[in-house]
Amino acid sequence: MSKQKIAILGAGPSGLAQLRAFEAARKAGVQDLPEIVCFEKQSDIGGMWNYTWRTGLDKNGEPVHGSMYRYLWSNGPKECLEFADYSFDEHFGRAIPSYPPRAVLKDYIMGRIDKQAISNYIRFECPVRWVSHDDATGKFTVTVMNHKTGLQESDEFDYVVVATGHFSTPNMPYFEGVEQFPGRVLHAHDFRDALEFKDKNVLLVGASYSAEDIGSQCYKYGAKSVTISYRSSPLGFDWPEGMEERPLLAHFDGNTGYFADGSSKAFDAIIMCTGYLFHFPFLPDALRLKTHNCLYPDNLYKGIFFQNNPKMIYLGMQDQYFTFNMFDAQAWYARDVILGKIALPDADERRQDMDRWLQRHEQLGGCCDAIDFQASYIRDLLGPTDYPEFKVEEQAALLKEWQQDKQAGIMSFREKCYRSTVTGTMATRLPASWLEIKDDSLESFMSLDFIENKSFDKVD
Amino acid sequence: MSKQKIAILGAGPSGLAQLRAFEAARKAGVQDLPEIVCFEKQSDIGGMWNYTWRTGLDKNGEPVHGSMYRYLWSNGPKECLEFADYSFDEHFGRAIPSYPPRAVLKDYIMGRIDKQAISNYIRFECPVRWVSHDDATGKFTVTVMNHKTGLQESDEFDYVVVATGHFSTPNMPYFEGVEQFPGRVLHAHDFRDALEFKDKNVLLVGASYSAEDIGSQCYKYGAKSVTISYRSSPLGFDWPEGMEERPLLAHFDGNTGYFADGSSKAFDAIIMCTGYLFHFPFLPDALRLKTHNCLYPDNLYKGIFFQNNPKMIYLGMQDQYFTFNMFDAQAWYARDVILGKIALPDADERRQDMDRWLQRHEQLGGCCDAIDFQASYIRDLLGPTDYPEFKVEEQAALLKEWQQDKQAGIMSFREKCYRSTVTGTMATRLPASWLEIKDDSLESFMSLDFIENKSFDKVD
Repeated sequence: MSKQKIAILGAGPSGLAQLRAFEAARKAGVQDLPEIVCFEKQSDIGGMWNYTWRTGLDKNGEPVHGSMYRYLWSNGPKECLEFADYSFDEHFGRAIPSYPPRAVLKDYIMGRIDKQAISNYIRFECPVRWVSHDDATGKFTVTVMNHKTGLQESDEFDYVVVATGHFSTPNMPYFEGVEQFPGRVLHAHDFRDALEFKDKNVLLVGASYSAEDIGSQCYKYGAKSVTISYRSSPLGFDWPEGMEERPLLAHFDGNTGYFADGSSKAFDAIIMCTGYLFHFPFLPDALRLKTHNCLYPDNLYKGIFFQNNPKMIYLGMQDQYFTFNMFDAQAWYARDVILGKIALPDADERRQDMDRWLQRHEQLGGCCDAIDFQASYIRDLLGPTDYPEFKVEEQAALLKEWQQDKQAGIMSFREKCYRSTVTGTMATRLPASWLEIKDDSLESFMSLDFIENKSFDKVD
Repeated sequence: MSKQKIAILGAGPSGLAQLRAFEAARKAGVQDLPEIVCFEKQSDIGGMWNYTWRTGLDKNGEPVHGSMYRYLWSNGPKECLEFADYSFDEHFGRAIPSYPPRAVLKDYIMGRIDKQAISNYIRFECPVRWVSHDDATGKFTVTVMNHKTGLQESDEFDYVVVATGHFSTPNMPYFEGVEQFPGRVLHAHDFRDALEFKDKNVLLVGASYSAEDIGSQCYKYGAKSVTISYRSSPLGFDWPEGMEERPLLAHFDGNTGYFADGSSKAFDAIIMCTGYLFHFPFLPDALRLKTHNCLYPDNLYKGIFFQNNPKMIYLGMQDQYFTFNMFDAQAWYARDVILGKIALPDADERRQDMDRWLQRHEQLGGCCDAIDFQASYIRDLLGPTDYPEFKVEEQAALLKEWQQDKQAGIMSFREKCYRSTVTGTMATRLPASWLEIKDDSLESFMSLDFIENKSFDKVD
């Protein structure tokens, strides 16, 4: 029998987790590992964590993957996304604060993957054009455009791992009059630099993480005012002067937005923080996941294996409290199924298992419930694999604290410190407030004089 | 033998020309016309002439087709793009000025296609995912995503007409330091509203139609300054105060751009007017045209039939002096080949014919040469078809006048009037200068008091 072949689509956090899972097996001496090819649209690894100044389409005419913007800092504690098999301590050699800027997190994610593995497995500037499945042979054919040669390439695979993310294709609603708005109208996906909105009256439509964070960025970098329009309920933070929430936008007249409560305000720019679409233009209907953003998309057994064809593997398609380490748990589980260490049950049993999770999913209450749900989901995956033990439930507790810390101070929560559940190391403190630290580069951040915490407890 | 089937990809000016060509045959009583399906990504006809406020990706997550912006007026005389089989007089019922705004031109293009034909042939919100060709059966399989149903559809066709345009996928160069520029950086493709740049110092990179026209728009709507950076040679117009040209951009430092002549200037926004890529992500290598923007792309016999497989038909892939009526000439010719009225020569003869044109193409001097070249190309197509006679050479003469009129006054050339080569009607005059008329809507334009020209000659 010839070697199995696996196509991984995407070299962001999920795709890299899958590569790392196989690398871990190789280093542990597992023989007969499958052949792996990872196709990446961008010219570097990191997925969403690559910053690009480009918007819309990239240099090859492909939709820009990144929704990343300058000055983004982690909006959750790094202790909740730490890899169990590669700690922050191992990467940085010393304790750092709990909320690092993007470049620091990217450095951490990328540091885990050695250059050898990258050049062995990853094909850059190769967006996937089309995937088909031959029911007779049971093989997938993956066709990619190799922009380095200008030619397409097709190959057969036994498994396809879709790790292309779901925060790249904007969901962009229409509001009456928006086509006549005399300023910039953009989706959060295209937001790059808060300085563009200095001294401006900015309207953010939407009340989730994008609005919360982009609004805070605009405030930090000198917007004249920031208005957040919510549909169902306000974010409800104690916003600083110059920031406010209003109910749903009704329509525009010129540069004036009208809201459901009858109020109105003139704006210079509109940023739609209205979420993302699941978009897989390279997949036929029979292989394509159809879902909205939730903690348990239907038709993915263990949140991973596509029900119609479980050799079609999806990573990271959940809404996320846990991120990098959840992708690891999925990747290790997927690896062990591919290697035959874990047997997949038949379709009926898979359906029943999904139904049990979906039933529980339907009954979730607030965010504490949701955090616990995702923690048990991860715990369920970790059981049968050799992924190093990580303290999922302790991290869940940190996530709940984080929620409270945000409520206590939306502009100051990034000054909080948490303890690593992997190494036990307590995060150091920022030497100044988040609002004061405006240079977000890796060099600048790592040269700050972090302050050690003496206490062994979480520091408020 | 079953009816032939034709897929037309795109319902913009080229695709509509192809539909109209077959409709004309039907109305002329031609029997056994092929079955036609036209797949359109947008939700309306008009292609590039649809204005959308959206940028980047559309409501379905597909790349936005349009590069159209508010306040765009035709940058060439309407007399040079008039359909020989549907005059401006027939559409508007009266004489209008030579340079109408976008909405007026769109109304004209769309007015030629009746609602019946639209609903008979066109499938909206159906971007093409993939086209394949079966050498054994000689048939194409076209797979589209029907966003109205959320499902894909595949069908077989005898011919594929690619009418998807080539001014939709930005060519976006990198300049050192651009990633740190603290303001908006966009491609002309994403430019929508000059009012966003009021009171700003705007840098336009590139020295072709986009830079010329977007620069003029920004000036008209109150930009503080407009700087155009050219690579090889300046546009050379007599720019008004506040507009200037500088040599090639070298790099950025913060918001300051440095130019090849050592000069520098601080900017608030950068608009890359750096052209477009030919981008057919839905086509395999074997069917895909590879070219840059020129008057005679190689491997298209008669500028239409793909050499590898002449049932693969490309419309409007040339750089354009002539536009709508050139697409008509191509569409009528393609129709007559499909209907068997014109026989295609064999591959060698086609190659020789292309080589003759390419040789002539290589020897072209300035723009007068180029205009004459495209005129003879069109004349060559018109010969064997029943497309109503249009006076290509007279239009070529108008295009040369237009070049001079632009040189004489880049801000006032749109006040010139030309005579229709189709109906002989003299265009009416605008009642005010182009710089003064700021509302570009169809209603507003058509309610202006156009001034009749008494003279029978071209009016300066």
